[in-house]
Amino acid sequence: MDVAALSPAQARARFRAGERVPTAGWCRGWTQANLIAVPAPLRYELLLFAHRNPRACPVLDVGEPGAWSTTLFRGDLRTDLPGYRLYRGGEPVADLDEVTGQWRADLVPFLIGCSFTFEGALLAAGVPLRHLEQGRNVPMYRTNVPCESTASLSGPLVVSMRPVPEELVSTAVEVSGRYPRVHGAPVHVGDPAAIGVLDLDRPDFGDPVELRPGDVPLFWACGVTPQAAIMASGVEYAIGHLPGHMAVLDVRDDDYRVT
Amino acid sequence: MDVAALSPAQARARFRAGERVPTAGWCRGWTQANLIAVPAPLRYELLLFAHRNPRACPVLDVGEPGAWSTTLFRGDLRTDLPGYRLYRGGEPVADLDEVTGQWRADLVPFLIGCSFTFEGALLAAGVPLRHLEQGRNVPMYRTNVPCESTASLSGPLVVSMRPVPEELVSTAVEVSGRYPRVHGAPVHVGDPAAIGVLDLDRPDFGDPVELRPGDVPLFWACGVTPQAAIMASGVEYAIGHLPGHMAVLDVRDDDYRVT
Repeated sequence: MDVAALSPAQARARFRAGERVPTAGWCRGWTQANLIAVPAPLRYELLLFAHRNPRACPVLDVGEPGAWSTTLFRGDLRTDLPGYRLYRGGEPVADLDEVTGQWRADLVPFLIGCSFTFEGALLAAGVPLRHLEQGRNVPMYRTNVPCESTASLSGPLVVSMRPVPEELVSTAVEVSGRYPRVHGAPVHVGDPAAIGVLDLDRPDFGDPVELRPGDVPLFWACGVTPQAAIMASGVEYAIGHLPGHMAVLDVRDDDYRVT
Repeated sequence: MDVAALSPAQARARFRAGERVPTAGWCRGWTQANLIAVPAPLRYELLLFAHRNPRACPVLDVGEPGAWSTTLFRGDLRTDLPGYRLYRGGEPVADLDEVTGQWRADLVPFLIGCSFTFEGALLAAGVPLRHLEQGRNVPMYRTNVPCESTASLSGPLVVSMRPVPEELVSTAVEVSGRYPRVHGAPVHVGDPAAIGVLDLDRPDFGDPVELRPGDVPLFWACGVTPQAAIMASGVEYAIGHLPGHMAVLDVRDDDYRVT
């Protein structure tokens, strides 16, 4: 079963049926997105937070209050992701396979670009993806870099990390840089401590991934950043995707490539 | 008196003292911006409208409700622009020199990028600016191109027009294209009728400008677009700048140039 060959609708049907799995490597050629749904009174703050932090929070699509599909996502946002995380008072209170009962009528869904979108281009350019080789979710870390805040939303930049062989660092930067709407080039190359990541083996989200000899850690701004802000800001109620378990959109990744 | 040599603070002092004049050519090297201030309940819709129409509505800065300065504009937004337009129920009801008495405590000010910002770069590249030569405001037109709408905001794309000698069209496109945050390259080159502009001599905003023999009209997305949406959507209350009479920001135009 080659999950890379599945269509978005086929993948969503499997997730709807209960499969809980990170989506790295799934649906090669299709765009993946982070989900963050907040109560309508917070939607302005979230959109402004995203606007002020475009590297981490590139907004690809926004739904109307209570909507469970959007222009770019023709499935059901309540069931068609492989995993969800429910927040109350800024605390993650449950990881769920579907959130039909939790999808309040005032929830506004935001879809935020995801770096899985350019992984196909990295592979095509000869850059190995260690998390795929090792069958793991990508590791994600809270940094000590603060986001630009709004009146009630603040929090740290979250990054995803991919180990890249030293001789391919430049290639990885250049190739991912062609996808600015899905985080673009890395925000940091090298020493994790420089951005406040103290132990690569203990990611805040996702799985640890082993560096091979000669690998350099590359850090990309990550669409889990809004979830970190939900936590840091004590937001009353929110639903996110389970980190690494993304929404697969009905848009080709090439649509987010600039040339 | 060379208005191009004024600092933003010097220019704002003159506008505050009552000078009502288009700001094209003022404060060379400094960023200019459109103002649109809407009641807080509409701020989400306006930010989403801007997000969905980034070419016309690049948001440079947003203030808190009732604020009259922002990070990028250290003057007083109620007095330091050379002219204002007040809207009630979507109708322009007054053009004013200052709006201190009209600045409701729930107004949220948005500053939107303005193509005057790259005019210095056009001149430096040898592209003549006919509106400056002719001592006029730039002409602006409603097009027949609809913006992407939100639940309650819709309206036409508004464009500014500059006549450019045919042999310099490519240069003008390239140079302005380096400033994507202040409208970037033209949205249309040539036949005005193709975008629903039927009479260049009758702009919807600003002044008519004469084409010289061999000039081609170039049309740029314009930050008056939100005001056209205010009108088309019957928004209860709003304050904009008088078209062409911009906010001069404390940011260099080079900060919005990409290379």
